[in-house]
Amino acid sequence: MKRRKSSVPTVKDVAREAGVAVGTVSRVINGKPVTEEYERKVREAIRRLDYHVNSYAQGLKATRTYTVAVLIPNTINPFFGSLVNCLHQALADRHYRLLLCCTDSNLRQEQEYVDMARMNKVDGIIGLTYNPSLQIDPSTPFVSIDRAFDPNIPCVASDNFAGGQLAARKLIELGCHKAAFLRVGSDLDNEPNKRRAGFEHGCMAGGLEYDCCVYSDNIDPKGVFRDFLMSHIHDGRLDYDGLFCGTDYFACCVVQILKEAGIQAGRDVQIIGYDGVRLFGSEGYLCSTIEQPVRDIAETAVDLLLGSHNYHAAPLVCLPITFREGGTTRPL
Amino acid sequence: MKRRKSSVPTVKDVAREAGVAVGTVSRVINGKPVTEEYERKVREAIRRLDYHVNSYAQGLKATRTYTVAVLIPNTINPFFGSLVNCLHQALADRHYRLLLCCTDSNLRQEQEYVDMARMNKVDGIIGLTYNPSLQIDPSTPFVSIDRAFDPNIPCVASDNFAGGQLAARKLIELGCHKAAFLRVGSDLDNEPNKRRAGFEHGCMAGGLEYDCCVYSDNIDPKGVFRDFLMSHIHDGRLDYDGLFCGTDYFACCVVQILKEAGIQAGRDVQIIGYDGVRLFGSEGYLCSTIEQPVRDIAETAVDLLLGSHNYHAAPLVCLPITFREGGTTRPL
Repeated sequence: MKRRKSSVPTVKDVAREAGVAVGTVSRVINGKPVTEEYERKVREAIRRLDYHVNSYAQGLKATRTYTVAVLIPNTINPFFGSLVNCLHQALADRHYRLLLCCTDSNLRQEQEYVDMARMNKVDGIIGLTYNPSLQIDPSTPFVSIDRAFDPNIPCVASDNFAGGQLAARKLIELGCHKAAFLRVGSDLDNEPNKRRAGFEHGCMAGGLEYDCCVYSDNIDPKGVFRDFLMSHIHDGRLDYDGLFCGTDYFACCVVQILKEAGIQAGRDVQIIGYDGVRLFGSEGYLCSTIEQPVRDIAETAVDLLLGSHNYHAAPLVCLPITFREGGTTRPL
Repeated sequence: MKRRKSSVPTVKDVAREAGVAVGTVSRVINGKPVTEEYERKVREAIRRLDYHVNSYAQGLKATRTYTVAVLIPNTINPFFGSLVNCLHQALADRHYRLLLCCTDSNLRQEQEYVDMARMNKVDGIIGLTYNPSLQIDPSTPFVSIDRAFDPNIPCVASDNFAGGQLAARKLIELGCHKAAFLRVGSDLDNEPNKRRAGFEHGCMAGGLEYDCCVYSDNIDPKGVFRDFLMSHIHDGRLDYDGLFCGTDYFACCVVQILKEAGIQAGRDVQIIGYDGVRLFGSEGYLCSTIEQPVRDIAETAVDLLLGSHNYHAAPLVCLPITFREGGTTRPL
C-alpha cells in the first residue's frame, strides 16, 4: 500500500530535499551541533519547503527545552551587563538559550521564572537575586551567584573574603595609616558581605587602623557617604588615607564627593573599589579595583547548572580575584 | 459513573485547593494578570500539590509563547545594556518574556533565532543587527532597531538625521569655525549613517566648514582617529575647534587621544558624541552628547511587534533626540 504524500511537509521531506539523514534535520531543529555545511543545507531546505516545526509536539518527545532563565537586577550596571554577556556566551557555547529576567523592573516575576523551571518550561535558573521571599523547591535546578540561599543550592561568587584581604594589603603597601570601609548593601546573608570581613581581617593582620561605614539597603549611598566623609574632614584634610569601597560604583561616588571637597584620589587618599568595571567594557578601569573574574563565574555557574561538575553536595565556589590599578591609587 | 481521581494533580485540583476558579489557575499558569492575592493562592496550591504543567500540551492549545527574542550585539556596551533593560521592561509590562541573543559571540545564532519565530517557538523578534546575510521571511514578526532591512519590516531608531543637524547647530552656537565628523561603522544601509548626512546638512545650512573622517567596519577606531587627529595638529593646535563623533564611545576615544596631545575637550575643542551614555546608567553623561530616547525606542519596538499600532505599511519610526552637556563642550 502506497501512502499518500501529505501536503504539509515533514521532517522526512526536509531530509530528502536537503540530501541528509532525518537525524541531521532533527539535530538542526533541536539546536544540536552539526557541521556548518549540513546546517546550511537543512535550513535552506526548511525555507524552500516552508516547513514549520510543531515545537510543542516536539517538546513532548524531547526532555529538554535547551533554555535557561537568568535572573539579574538589571543590564544597566556594567558589572551585571558584563555578567549577562558572559552567561549568554557560556550558554550559547553549549547550545542553550538565555531567557532574561531583569528583576529591578518586576520583583514578582522572579518567582514566576522559578516556577517555570518546575513546569519544565526552562531547564533551570541562574540567579543573582536578593529577593528575600524567593522560594526555591529543592528539585528545581538553580545555581545562585553571590548569594548562598541554602545548602542544596550551589553558589558561585568571586572570592569576596580574599578580595577584602587583598584591598587591605594593597592599602598597607601604599603606606596608608588609617583606613575606612564604605558600603551600602543587602542585610541578607550573601557573599559580597564578606568583602568587609576580609578587609577587617587584612587590616588587623597588617596592623592597619580602620573604621567601617556600612548601611543596609534602601538608603541613598551618596548621601550617607557624603555625611560620613564630611564629618571626617578637618582643615581640608581627610582623617583617612585609604578607603575600600564595596563596589566600583561606590568608589566613583566617593571620588566625586572628595573631589568637590578638594581632596584628590590617588594623591591625598588611596581608593580601591570592587568589581573591575571598565568604561565600555574594554577601556580603562573606572577606579583602582578588586576585579571579579566575570567570565569564570559565568562558565562555572553554567557548568554547575548543566551538571558537568560532579559534586557530592551543592558547593560554594569562590573564584580568584585580582587587584587592578585604575588611577585612584598611587602606582605601586 | 463516578470517575476515579487521578493520582497526578490536575488544574481542577489546583483550583479546588486554592479556592479559586479553574480560569484563574489557567491565567496564572499562562502568565496573565490576576490580583496578587489570587496569584499567591494559586502558586501556594501548585506547590502544595506538587502540580506540574505539561507546558507542551498547554502550548498546543495556546497560540502564543509569550516570548520575544531580542538580537543585540552584546550587553557590555552601555547603550546596548540600557536598550536590553528597557526592552525587558516593556515586554514584562505586557506579560512577555525576553529570550536574549548576544550576536557578537555567535553570529550563526542570529539566523537560528529568526527561524525559531518561523517554528512558533517565539512570537517574534526585535533585532539590532548588522548581519548582512540575515534572511527574514516576510511572515516572520520582526521589528528592527537602527537598520531598515526592507519595506516589509518596521524599523525604530532615534532621529539620526535630526541628531546630526542638532550637533552641527550646537557647534555653531558654541562659536566653532571648522568642524569634523568622525565615525567607524557598518557600510550596510542603516539609520546611524544618517548622523553624518544630518551633520553635513546642518553645517551647510549654518555656514560651518567641515571635514569627514569616516571608515567602514572591522577597523580599529582608535588607530584611525589617532592618525586623522595627529595629521591635523600643528604647533600643538588642532585644525578643528568642533568635533562630532558617531558614538559616545568614539567621543571618549577622541577626548583621550587629544588629552595625550595636550588638547583639552571643552576648552580647546568642542566635542559632541551620540547615544547619551551615562556612567552606571544614572550618573553624569560621559561626554556632551545627542541622547537617544532609549525607553521610547524600546516601547515603540515592542508595540510595533505586538501589533498595538495600526500602520498600513511597515513604518520607519524616528524618535526625538536631545542635546546633553557632558563636560566636553563649553556651557552654553
